[in-house]
Amino acid sequence: MSEVNNELELALNFLDINQKHSIDRLFEILSIPSISTQKKYKKDCLKAANWFVKQLTDIGFEASSRETNGHPMVVAHFETKGPHFLFYGHYDVQPVDPIELWNQGPFKPSIEETDKGKVIRARGASDDKGQVMTFIEACRAHIKTSGTLPCKITILLEGEEEIGSPSMTKFLKDNSKELSSDYCLVCDTGMWDHKTPCITTMLRGMVGDEVKIIAANRDLHSGMYGGLAANPIHILSKILSYLHDENGRITLEGFYDEVPELSKQQKDQWDSLDFNSEEFLSDVGLSNVIGEKKYSPLEKIWSQPTCEVNGIWGGYTEPGFKTVLPSEASAKVSFRLVGNQDPTKILESFRNHVLSNLPSDCKAEFNAKAGSSASSLPIDSPEIKAAESALFDEWKIQPKMVGCGGSIPIGDHFKNILGTDSLLVGFGLDDDKIHSPNEKYNLSSYQKGTRSWARIISNLSKV
Amino acid sequence: MSEVNNELELALNFLDINQKHSIDRLFEILSIPSISTQKKYKKDCLKAANWFVKQLTDIGFEASSRETNGHPMVVAHFETKGPHFLFYGHYDVQPVDPIELWNQGPFKPSIEETDKGKVIRARGASDDKGQVMTFIEACRAHIKTSGTLPCKITILLEGEEEIGSPSMTKFLKDNSKELSSDYCLVCDTGMWDHKTPCITTMLRGMVGDEVKIIAANRDLHSGMYGGLAANPIHILSKILSYLHDENGRITLEGFYDEVPELSKQQKDQWDSLDFNSEEFLSDVGLSNVIGEKKYSPLEKIWSQPTCEVNGIWGGYTEPGFKTVLPSEASAKVSFRLVGNQDPTKILESFRNHVLSNLPSDCKAEFNAKAGSSASSLPIDSPEIKAAESALFDEWKIQPKMVGCGGSIPIGDHFKNILGTDSLLVGFGLDDDKIHSPNEKYNLSSYQKGTRSWARIISNLSKV
Repeated sequence: MSEVNNELELALNFLDINQKHSIDRLFEILSIPSISTQKKYKKDCLKAANWFVKQLTDIGFEASSRETNGHPMVVAHFETKGPHFLFYGHYDVQPVDPIELWNQGPFKPSIEETDKGKVIRARGASDDKGQVMTFIEACRAHIKTSGTLPCKITILLEGEEEIGSPSMTKFLKDNSKELSSDYCLVCDTGMWDHKTPCITTMLRGMVGDEVKIIAANRDLHSGMYGGLAANPIHILSKILSYLHDENGRITLEGFYDEVPELSKQQKDQWDSLDFNSEEFLSDVGLSNVIGEKKYSPLEKIWSQPTCEVNGIWGGYTEPGFKTVLPSEASAKVSFRLVGNQDPTKILESFRNHVLSNLPSDCKAEFNAKAGSSASSLPIDSPEIKAAESALFDEWKIQPKMVGCGGSIPIGDHFKNILGTDSLLVGFGLDDDKIHSPNEKYNLSSYQKGTRSWARIISNLSKV
Repeated sequence: MSEVNNELELALNFLDINQKHSIDRLFEILSIPSISTQKKYKKDCLKAANWFVKQLTDIGFEASSRETNGHPMVVAHFETKGPHFLFYGHYDVQPVDPIELWNQGPFKPSIEETDKGKVIRARGASDDKGQVMTFIEACRAHIKTSGTLPCKITILLEGEEEIGSPSMTKFLKDNSKELSSDYCLVCDTGMWDHKTPCITTMLRGMVGDEVKIIAANRDLHSGMYGGLAANPIHILSKILSYLHDENGRITLEGFYDEVPELSKQQKDQWDSLDFNSEEFLSDVGLSNVIGEKKYSPLEKIWSQPTCEVNGIWGGYTEPGFKTVLPSEASAKVSFRLVGNQDPTKILESFRNHVLSNLPSDCKAEFNAKAGSSASSLPIDSPEIKAAESALFDEWKIQPKMVGCGGSIPIGDHFKNILGTDSLLVGFGLDDDKIHSPNEKYNLSSYQKGTRSWARIISNLSKV
């Protein structure tokens, strides 16, 4: 056994022996309700950032929290010889509503025995605190056993990923020299299944908008005004119902202009993955694949754009009845983008659609969420090859190269601002219920995740 | 001056002299938040009922509160010679949300100077506590000045009018003997304008339903499932948008089957009223009359049925963004009915519409609001003629005979269960903002309302 392999074995051994302490640390950070979208949790976001600064300082990083206009960034450096990698993750989490559907406090983490094995249950267990900790614990293991890391590492953790990373672009531009590296590492994606790791090479972009339709200047009595005065819920319903045609194709003008045809090679590779959409949907109680029939389910999630209404509200929504003709109605709409779709142009097309369907005596107000373009990574780089072999060593099964329906705009930003490609490896599973009540992270994802990163950074040091 | 007229003059004089005390009593009852649709105000509904029992007992009625499955009924009798009239009103009020749009506490009544004169501002000032008090104060004046009423009066006040009167039918059936009378009097309608009284001879009925569309068994991540799994907000939007065609005509099967053509005579009478729909809409910030062009604005409100979505909700509705694909979406829908439209059939047609537009892997749940049919009153009865002349004497202007877009199911119930017609006279105004923030009742409506009822019961005693 070579010296390097010896060092890796020591780190892996350390991870196995110290698993309990590692989980204790994870539980500490899972207990902090760092919900970035709700103002009342601002202090908790700060607390989570400071917690990471302390952790990283403790194991030998030079770490600090950096102010932004929103929640702070955590930046940490570990200087040593070898190539330089920038690791990215986020410490903020999604809101927890509907809170009544949680079987425990979302911020009271626990280990639960399920028929699919042990899971860590808490908001953020999978997205993204658990994933971030797999990397930090791998670093800890290397440093504690060898006194150093196998390569130079910078860690960047943000607290605004779940709200569209409004501070990120400026922060990367302002600190581009400090954050420049040879390659980026991102742990915010999933596995193919609980036995099979994967590397994500294609990501959808995203842009969102909130629209409010305003009709009368006050709520009206539906008996006095009904049938005569505009009802903003009716107008909003029409506008939203026009967004998709009967085949599920999005009707916005120019929407598909920059959506590329999928190459036969890529399509064949995805078809070979043998994705079981029936099982995927039946897990959540559904059976019908919606949308255009000419695309396979995987193409729909990975290479086709979407338009989803994420929320709608207007009028009387409490128990009982109120025969009101409301003055306004609102919806939150988001678009997953692919190919070269431009978030700004998509937003503009959506707003034109709303305005062109608006009666002349009504108004519309908008409030956009920052957008990101889709990204696609080269699958034959030495870094991806190094990760592929490390993942094979750990999981004893060939990792899959996949697309992802979600949006991790950071890859886009790293490419555009820092000029660096990103390796996307993560250990989430489809049934992790990220963004839903009762989020979990498999204990095996966590434990083998830490071991996977220990192996990946060891391999990367030789690139 | 005859003896009877003398008695009336004494009563009118009493009302003028004691106006301040009368308003103090009105303020007492306006201070009780008797919102029938929200459980937390159950005690306040009871308190309001008891307040009326005490008031009526004080002036000589034999009054009691009667239990129902919901909020209690108040029943009070005043025995004397002459014909017997049953007066109806309701002591419950609408919810107050959006509370932030009120310029004062909704249950802290005040008199406010406006450019249209003095108004009484509070929830329920117009609908219906202020209106009920015009009648009770008229009774008080007669009794205090003549020691009796000019005719036999029974008063029935309910606490569930704003939630569709679920206990009324049973109560009327169980107590039909006690409540039988020669004619009913209802004070829950409006004036033509602030100078012109009116008698409402045509009312729309109503039926409501709440629908919940359920897709996945939990909220999903729109990146992982978007484009593949059904979005219940999209389904609900489509279902609601199909309810009206492009001309505003309601598309439910059989919806117009029992809607009669308006007689030429009735249409001509309404056209002669010279209703200014532009002014009516511009008061609330709108300018376009919606709906089918072949009907005049008054026909749309008085003799055409409607379908209005009163509330809608689903997914993430808090500030910020959450890219959720929600598991369910709901709406409250109500229909104003005319002619012989049957509430049960309309409800069934609506539910069929929902179910026939529902994907096979989604579910719909319903929760109906009790319905009532439309009603139409004979305009040449001696009772209506007596009221017409009393109103003329008070307001010095010929009262108009009008329809009403709202629904006062009680007329329907009195006709069907007690076999009695109803006289609908009220002093509300279009700008009273009933069901909206900052509800008011003109002080002139209140004061001249009390005087009008004093005259009406005096005239009715001679029928």
